[in-house]
Amino acid sequence: MRNLIAAMWILAAAPAFAQAPAWRPVPATDAVEPSQTIAEAPAEAWQDIPPENLLLIDLASGQRVAIELAPLFAPVHVANIRAFARSGYWHSPAIYRVQDNYVVQWGNGEEEGGQAPPLPQGVVALPPAEYGRPLQGLSPRPLGFPDAYAPLVGHAGGWPLAWDPESGRAWLPHCYGTVGVARDLAPDTGSGAELYAVSGHAPRQLDRNIATVGRVIEGFEHMTANRRGSEALGFIGNRVDRVPIARISMAADLPEGERPAFQSMRTDSASFAAYVKGRANRGGPFFAVQAGGVDVCNAPVPVRRRP
Amino acid sequence: MRNLIAAMWILAAAPAFAQAPAWRPVPATDAVEPSQTIAEAPAEAWQDIPPENLLLIDLASGQRVAIELAPLFAPVHVANIRAFARSGYWHSPAIYRVQDNYVVQWGNGEEEGGQAPPLPQGVVALPPAEYGRPLQGLSPRPLGFPDAYAPLVGHAGGWPLAWDPESGRAWLPHCYGTVGVARDLAPDTGSGAELYAVSGHAPRQLDRNIATVGRVIEGFEHMTANRRGSEALGFIGNRVDRVPIARISMAADLPEGERPAFQSMRTDSASFAAYVKGRANRGGPFFAVQAGGVDVCNAPVPVRRRP
Repeated sequence: MRNLIAAMWILAAAPAFAQAPAWRPVPATDAVEPSQTIAEAPAEAWQDIPPENLLLIDLASGQRVAIELAPLFAPVHVANIRAFARSGYWHSPAIYRVQDNYVVQWGNGEEEGGQAPPLPQGVVALPPAEYGRPLQGLSPRPLGFPDAYAPLVGHAGGWPLAWDPESGRAWLPHCYGTVGVARDLAPDTGSGAELYAVSGHAPRQLDRNIATVGRVIEGFEHMTANRRGSEALGFIGNRVDRVPIARISMAADLPEGERPAFQSMRTDSASFAAYVKGRANRGGPFFAVQAGGVDVCNAPVPVRRRP
Repeated sequence: MRNLIAAMWILAAAPAFAQAPAWRPVPATDAVEPSQTIAEAPAEAWQDIPPENLLLIDLASGQRVAIELAPLFAPVHVANIRAFARSGYWHSPAIYRVQDNYVVQWGNGEEEGGQAPPLPQGVVALPPAEYGRPLQGLSPRPLGFPDAYAPLVGHAGGWPLAWDPESGRAWLPHCYGTVGVARDLAPDTGSGAELYAVSGHAPRQLDRNIATVGRVIEGFEHMTANRRGSEALGFIGNRVDRVPIARISMAADLPEGERPAFQSMRTDSASFAAYVKGRANRGGPFFAVQAGGVDVCNAPVPVRRRP
């Protein structure tokens, strides 16, 4: 009877604010603790992150933040970011926005009326709105649990994914650590000179409204632990209060011996399927009840230093 | 055809890891920007937060964090917390755990083998497992969008809520700012002497596994911006590196003139319905696409200083 009622909700044309269909989580009894799955994943479950996709933010404090770029989703913006890093465009970069439960943002952070440096050669000044891409070619693995923002969510090519089979569009959702391109009002899409990373509960309302270009894979705590900016939206108005960045570079440009090397878990691997199952059904002596589900931002793709 | 397929998913007995039924977000064209709804909400849309439910954490730095306690969900734990605050049990409290994208935790933080003070009179040493409560009596308003962790989510009595109509159980979900009672392994439920607040993407796997007892309503940035603990799980082993707390008190015990006064939006008000609709369908010149949905942790109940 319950199921029939739920089915009727779906069969009816859904008004915008209708009760969502009930979904009954069913915990799995054979789930393995995610940390164990990660530790035991075989070598073939991991893929190298190309140094060409690895952006390194070296804070003046000596701490490093590593970001994996996602040309799969935003090739023009990613090409711009590489060019900014390589050209010295970021002449005196800093973290100039720290908004609690939202984002950390950095770049040159020119003041209103300030003079931005000329764009490096090859940079596309007005990139297309890479707020998503065709679903075709991604072969995503559905997460298997419902989402409040998209018809379907899951993973593809080592990334979280949200998609709409009807429109054929897919996008990299805003999860903790997701990196996006700051922009002004549409149709401006941002050049990639000013970037942010999500530092709070997933602000999925930004999905399909901004170019998401990557994710922080190491050292994010050096950004998130900074004092929140006191101005509106967490901006840090006073230049001396900003968090200075010594250097932004591509790992590919470092001498091989100095390059950090990372791997991410293949999202089409059996290990990853087991990992997601474990995230949805936490076991061990602490958990009395298993959720039987997990949201796409609470099952981050495992990343490790290359062993 | 799409809908029929979705309905078949529901009609079939759902295996633990099945594809969730597709849900198609339908953006609303008449949504109002949430900040505008909050600004225009009439006085009757707000309710006072009783000072008896207001826990104040005064950091040694002079900054204050305000927490609303939730006797609606965990009456025994909340009574314990009031007794701890009033008895001076917290003799030298500190923030001793800051784990990135997870929790901030505080209390006396006794070392392994350290001697905890005797429990104040009236404190229940081993409270019941208040990991949820009967749904009966709550009259929740469903959010109207699907959730990955619970059959239904929404709001009741000024709080976010997850519930299962079949079991008749309801619980206060782990969202950003939710306060819970740290515990060791079950069946221990924690006394309330050691508390944590969620400081990252909602760790909903903790739902129904821990007593959730309230939420931070002001000043959380003074907790979240602290340096992450360097030990496992973000613990700060060295006492001198902890973030000292000068005083933990109940607002009700302060002289009336010194008491901060807060209000939360009534979740059964028309203003709150409009607010949720606005959170699910962000408008204005920035947003090119409306999500048409929002998750329960991304529609926090508005709180304000009493005007």
